[in-house]
Amino acid sequence: MTELRKTVETYWSAAQARDWAAFADTLSIDVLYDLPQTRERIRGRENFLTFNRDYPADWRLLRINRVVADPESAQVVTWVHVAVGLEEMYAITYFTGDADGRITTITDFWPEPYEPPTGREHLAERY
Amino acid sequence: MTELRKTVETYWSAAQARDWAAFADTLSIDVLYDLPQTRERIRGRENFLTFNRDYPADWRLLRINRVVADPESAQVVTWVHVAVGLEEMYAITYFTGDADGRITTITDFWPEPYEPPTGREHLAERY
Repeated sequence: MTELRKTVETYWSAAQARDWAAFADTLSIDVLYDLPQTRERIRGRENFLTFNRDYPADWRLLRINRVVADPESAQVVTWVHVAVGLEEMYAITYFTGDADGRITTITDFWPEPYEPPTGREHLAERY
Repeated sequence: MTELRKTVETYWSAAQARDWAAFADTLSIDVLYDLPQTRERIRGRENFLTFNRDYPADWRLLRINRVVADPESAQVVTWVHVAVGLEEMYAITYFTGDADGRITTITDFWPEPYEPPTGREHLAERY
């Protein structure tokens, strides 16, 4: 039984290498990919592979900032930084897995910068 | 030794109840609170308590959608839905803890809805 954490590490390295055979092997055939911010859902490995293959090739994984792995519930959350062209972005991604250590659901968040509301400058420093 | 997962559950229930004594008890005295989207950082329990006490009282925890707890690295990630007035929002929050099960760092993301780019309607359904 493969640990989901290992599968997720392969998911990111294979995506970065555009190694679609290795990438496909991390996924359950019925994988569900959700983007709550746009309310988009992609069903199944084939569609999700197409989605990733078609994604602009100037995408680059900069670093995996955090991995939180819950072996008991077969859940993993990553926080990764990527470059898309000259822009740096980050994604928070929830994964769940099956008994074979394959990914069954992926829930992806892409939080964007915003200006802080006024009235808390006395409590918060900027970095 | 309190498990960080339990502390985090208390953190959310105490925040919802505005029970600041119970809330304070979940936090290390040196707790760091980061908002990467605004690049704000609040240092220390007292400042973070003030920040929360001053936050509009029409805030309401709707549900804890997911909890991913990594006992080995003392990390927990939650995905919660809240109502702020009539608006529903969600937050992804990373916690780390100390040996006493108190929270040492909190990293909070508030992803906002956006319109999906065109060109993937054939792969993605909307929900």
